[in-house]
Amino acid sequence: MNEMRPPQHGPDFRSDNVGAVAPEIIEALARANRDTATGYGGDTWSLELQKRFGELFEAKVKVYPVATGTAANALAMAAITPSHGAMFCQERAHILTSEVNAVGFFSGGGMLVPVAGPHGKVDPAALEEAIAAQGKGLMHRSQPASLNIVQATDLGAVYAVDEIRALAATAKRHGLKIHMDGARFANAIARLGCKPADITSRAGVDVLSFGMTKNGGLLCDAIVVFDEAAAPAIQWHVRRAGHVWSKARFAAAQLLAYVEDDLWLRNAGRANAMAARFDAGLKTIPGASLWAPIEANEIFLKAPAHVIDGLERDGVRFFRRAADMARFVCRFDATEAEVDAVLASLRRNLSNG
Amino acid sequence: MNEMRPPQHGPDFRSDNVGAVAPEIIEALARANRDTATGYGGDTWSLELQKRFGELFEAKVKVYPVATGTAANALAMAAITPSHGAMFCQERAHILTSEVNAVGFFSGGGMLVPVAGPHGKVDPAALEEAIAAQGKGLMHRSQPASLNIVQATDLGAVYAVDEIRALAATAKRHGLKIHMDGARFANAIARLGCKPADITSRAGVDVLSFGMTKNGGLLCDAIVVFDEAAAPAIQWHVRRAGHVWSKARFAAAQLLAYVEDDLWLRNAGRANAMAARFDAGLKTIPGASLWAPIEANEIFLKAPAHVIDGLERDGVRFFRRAADMARFVCRFDATEAEVDAVLASLRRNLSNG
Amino acid sequence: MNEMRPPQHGPDFRSDNVGAVAPEIIEALARANRDTATGYGGDTWSLELQKRFGELFEAKVKVYPVATGTAANALAMAAITPSHGAMFCQERAHILTSEVNAVGFFSGGGMLVPVAGPHGKVDPAALEEAIAAQGKGLMHRSQPASLNIVQATDLGAVYAVDEIRALAATAKRHGLKIHMDGARFANAIARLGCKPADITSRAGVDVLSFGMTKNGGLLCDAIVVFDEAAAPAIQWHVRRAGHVWSKARFAAAQLLAYVEDDLWLRNAGRANAMAARFDAGLKTIPGASLWAPIEANEIFLKAPAHVIDGLERDGVRFFRRAADMARFVCRFDATEAEVDAVLASLRRNLSNG
Amino acid sequence: MNEMRPPQHGPDFRSDNVGAVAPEIIEALARANRDTATGYGGDTWSLELQKRFGELFEAKVKVYPVATGTAANALAMAAITPSHGAMFCQERAHILTSEVNAVGFFSGGGMLVPVAGPHGKVDPAALEEAIAAQGKGLMHRSQPASLNIVQATDLGAVYAVDEIRALAATAKRHGLKIHMDGARFANAIARLGCKPADITSRAGVDVLSFGMTKNGGLLCDAIVVFDEAAAPAIQWHVRRAGHVWSKARFAAAQLLAYVEDDLWLRNAGRANAMAARFDAGLKTIPGASLWAPIEANEIFLKAPAHVIDGLERDGVRFFRRAADMARFVCRFDATEAEVDAVLASLRRNLSNG
Repeated sequence: MNEMRPPQHGPDFRSDNVGAVAPEIIEALARANRDTATGYGGDTWSLELQKRFGELFEAKVKVYPVATGTAANALAMAAITPSHGAMFCQERAHILTSEVNAVGFFSGGGMLVPVAGPHGKVDPAALEEAIAAQGKGLMHRSQPASLNIVQATDLGAVYAVDEIRALAATAKRHGLKIHMDGARFANAIARLGCKPADITSRAGVDVLSFGMTKNGGLLCDAIVVFDEAAAPAIQWHVRRAGHVWSKARFAAAQLLAYVEDDLWLRNAGRANAMAARFDAGLKTIPGASLWAPIEANEIFLKAPAHVIDGLERDGVRFFRRAADMARFVCRFDATEAEVDAVLASLRRNLSNG
Repeated sequence: MNEMRPPQHGPDFRSDNVGAVAPEIIEALARANRDTATGYGGDTWSLELQKRFGELFEAKVKVYPVATGTAANALAMAAITPSHGAMFCQERAHILTSEVNAVGFFSGGGMLVPVAGPHGKVDPAALEEAIAAQGKGLMHRSQPASLNIVQATDLGAVYAVDEIRALAATAKRHGLKIHMDGARFANAIARLGCKPADITSRAGVDVLSFGMTKNGGLLCDAIVVFDEAAAPAIQWHVRRAGHVWSKARFAAAQLLAYVEDDLWLRNAGRANAMAARFDAGLKTIPGASLWAPIEANEIFLKAPAHVIDGLERDGVRFFRRAADMARFVCRFDATEAEVDAVLASLRRNLSNG
Repeated sequence: MNEMRPPQHGPDFRSDNVGAVAPEIIEALARANRDTATGYGGDTWSLELQKRFGELFEAKVKVYPVATGTAANALAMAAITPSHGAMFCQERAHILTSEVNAVGFFSGGGMLVPVAGPHGKVDPAALEEAIAAQGKGLMHRSQPASLNIVQATDLGAVYAVDEIRALAATAKRHGLKIHMDGARFANAIARLGCKPADITSRAGVDVLSFGMTKNGGLLCDAIVVFDEAAAPAIQWHVRRAGHVWSKARFAAAQLLAYVEDDLWLRNAGRANAMAARFDAGLKTIPGASLWAPIEANEIFLKAPAHVIDGLERDGVRFFRRAADMARFVCRFDATEAEVDAVLASLRRNLSNG
Repeated sequence: MNEMRPPQHGPDFRSDNVGAVAPEIIEALARANRDTATGYGGDTWSLELQKRFGELFEAKVKVYPVATGTAANALAMAAITPSHGAMFCQERAHILTSEVNAVGFFSGGGMLVPVAGPHGKVDPAALEEAIAAQGKGLMHRSQPASLNIVQATDLGAVYAVDEIRALAATAKRHGLKIHMDGARFANAIARLGCKPADITSRAGVDVLSFGMTKNGGLLCDAIVVFDEAAAPAIQWHVRRAGHVWSKARFAAAQLLAYVEDDLWLRNAGRANAMAARFDAGLKTIPGASLWAPIEANEIFLKAPAHVIDGLERDGVRFFRRAADMARFVCRFDATEAEVDAVLASLRRNLSNG
């Protein structure tokens, strides 16, 4: 991986989770593999993790390593949503489209309410309307409780700092708690060039799913709680869900390695750079358009069906969301050769149109 | 670890989860870290895992890697228990005492019914009584649905093959599905010297929590389903619980390495051997007695409180379950020196009595 | 009530549940109030209820009296939906808009998927699309499980027999179970002039919420199960939900009185007739239009906001669903005077426009 | 019923729910059946109910009419128990033995912890121990949350005022909320001759299931909340469970009639008097003994199996809890003739021993 070799079977943009693990993370596991250590988070690494993330987010935080982003999202949302609560999210939010209603299950009956908005973002005015329509105080309706936003969004766009602040202000005005699904949090930070706190603790976010898997991680993500009072029972929820590892040091070691020397931002920067290269290439190809601006590591290409068929025939690997919609995700270990290959295929197929 | 050095801070018998990871498992991660791979279990390693476990268990099985034993237990029990079901388990079963009622949560309202028996085993006659008392067909009572047995038990005993068969026969006669909590499955197999199938598929077990963590694993356990019809929805339950990793190859690679060349049985054999050494030593120490026979890698010592106080003063690390009850768990990487040190301390403290 | 006096405070069309109870039902309670009777449904009335409803629906049925329509809907849907299931319903369905996501709660995590269609009806083509979009077999998505249809609909329209058959055929083709919310089932039957079986058992419906409350009932509705295999655990669900009365005879007595001598159809016919009078009147008033055809006992009036304001000023009581949308529900004990009064007010306010 | 005729088929002591309804309650329904009324609790009767119960309990209360005692218990316990909570109750408590784990279901995973004690009462020392054993603060265990006590108990005994205060003090010291299952609350008050507040609001009880069904009620019980802060979401829980009737006036009217002119205490007094007559009779019969003192309207008779067989042969109706345990419940409309008949049968069968 260090030499950034293209995958054996042609350019692979199916997802960032088809990629490799940053070697630094596996090395960290090997380093932590000595002596005995207290179980369930009482070890040195886990304590260090709390401290390190406090520095990273410039706030008092509680970090709960969990196995996956779905676990992080569901447990975080359940922690801030009572069972009779309404959870607002964007129409394309991962928790709505791809996680078997885990948030409904873990919250014990909470109800997702989709809200419109451009490029996977929640529109503040639409949120305001949706909250109003939900009927605060009415005994017949799930009560407005929480807001889920995805950063970067499920269409590859990135909320600006001010956009998050504005949304949070709307949400807080109505008493909603705020969860950020940060499956591609690193890509957003790399894009914005801001501090992690700028779009989380300082912006009004209560709980964050801190994604690691998609950005060179192994088998570990994390929940970061900024307002402990917002999630008083989360420790038991996480334990009950089977997401507290007894050998917790090996989870903490991964997360520590991930943020050590800005590894996470370097990985994300590389993935974003590949997407930018993709973007630049597209600008030179007449006929290709986008569903959303390329702001992180994802490209949502709009093209005639026969063109997308052609990409498939050429052996390019990607996720076809619709006849005329192809999603390309740039891995942290994607190569320029892969990007160039897909651009060449696209150019060829478009000119054959 | 290869040289089996004792822990830096004195003999450590707190649990098998304070120990290290078998280096073979970390090496397997490094080996799998190349190229791209289909996510969510569509990769080569995951497919191989299904095949390999089919051979191991001499049966058609479905394997679901999950993060922890709690996850395996809760999802397995929920898969075989309707929300109005009664789940029978031993009075000291881990699912009853130590998992925040995860089985109640995941089954959506299932009720645990404790059953007595010696040494952490469910007694068949007591089970029969408990089922009868539960009132099959009565609309007022949770309906008998499933049986949980722990192998090795929570007191360190091991069910004989015939004991499992007898329990399974009782359970099946009443229509119960059977789950085996195999947190220390390897230790039981190493003890019995039988085939894995002898105490699972061939004995009537429907679903197994296949423990790896406590026996040199990293951050991964697994559910093994023997009767697919018994757990038709488990795939969605596991996914919804956030226990399907997108980078599933790295979970499968761990499980494959764990059973490769009998690594799991060698590890368990070593842990059991340390417990046997402990046992042999105890026999030479007047005044020490046991709560249960030592048949796997755990010792439940009964001794006067001041003796157990003395062990603590001597820097021996263990889990004090009660004033006069000390649990010692032998890690796969425990050393003879550790065992000898605790025996010496015990001898000294008993003679001081 | 027998003399059909208008309410003391002006015409009252707020809902059919603001009305009185058919005296026959209270008389039936008094008649049943003698001697002792076995509890929890083992009494003579409850057994008779099973038999009587079997005749009524020309099928083998199981009847479960419950306290409310919400209880009937939630328990019925939960009985035919696994916790990882997707439940399809119309965008204005009561279970989606007005029951605190009770179906999500009772199913243990099931997810409502709204489907478009005219006048509160599910459109078969839209249903087909929604099922396809839900991703059958995909581990990431709640699985298509059940369909909820409301008869008469939440906009006062009535499905024709063939419409239900067509929807049921689509649903069955995809393995969905079908629940009919019959909060205004009687009004629909009165309108269609068909047999109850024509739009339920013979049309492919698996479970029915048999509404009584809105049509002259007291405090009792019922679940009617047509396919026992579709709802094997419903008895325990109903009991656990606190909807099995120990003095069950008094629930059965109400339901028996309700269908005795076609009381239910006479009541519904009267309510429908008042709505028809309303409809006829509207046709003579220029400027008034409807959101849906008047086919049962509800009128959804579309009119400029100032006109609806005027109705309110005139003391007409109704439910304002939006600035330009007024819902009028005709009670079984509504009077012609009430209808005429609201028409007069409407005429006056429209001419003032 | 007014003439207190014995049941047609011999003395009937199966339960107090096999009996009739107090005629005053049905008359109240008939009286309330006029005009229209706002739905869902906005009517005059419902508002009066809040006021009347405030006077009755000498406290600010919130009353939620529900269909059954199971509903009241489950919704009340769920309101004061988080999903990771432990709920303490007596070993014979109805919520543990007879309600399909409804409290586990409605609380979303709460776990019942049985506590010993004499005659169906929770023993304060045993409660103290059980709380300690539950491991407050441990992430592995359901957290102590609530206490359920049954008044009169499930063995027919009655807690003295001081006993409830002592239990409540213990519970509060550990942060538990307290629920009283008052299925036979009236019988307890009639026995104690105290004010309702003495054993509820003033004694530390947070929520009460106010039983009406067993004491001459029809199809309605109620939850009484003393500490609104203890149950902030209960309104939505009750609504979602399908226990908010749209025609709420008819529920409120029943509850108002029940407490009007002390009807509830007169009914309970009559039932208790029949039990006292039973008790007095037993004292004259050598060989009969009791499982618990007769303090309300239940008798738990201990007698050799052949004697209880004899009672059955004689046509006496009761509930046989075990071979040598017969439960007799005196209905509010039980007659002296019934009591005398069973005593005669018992005397005969004992002398035949």
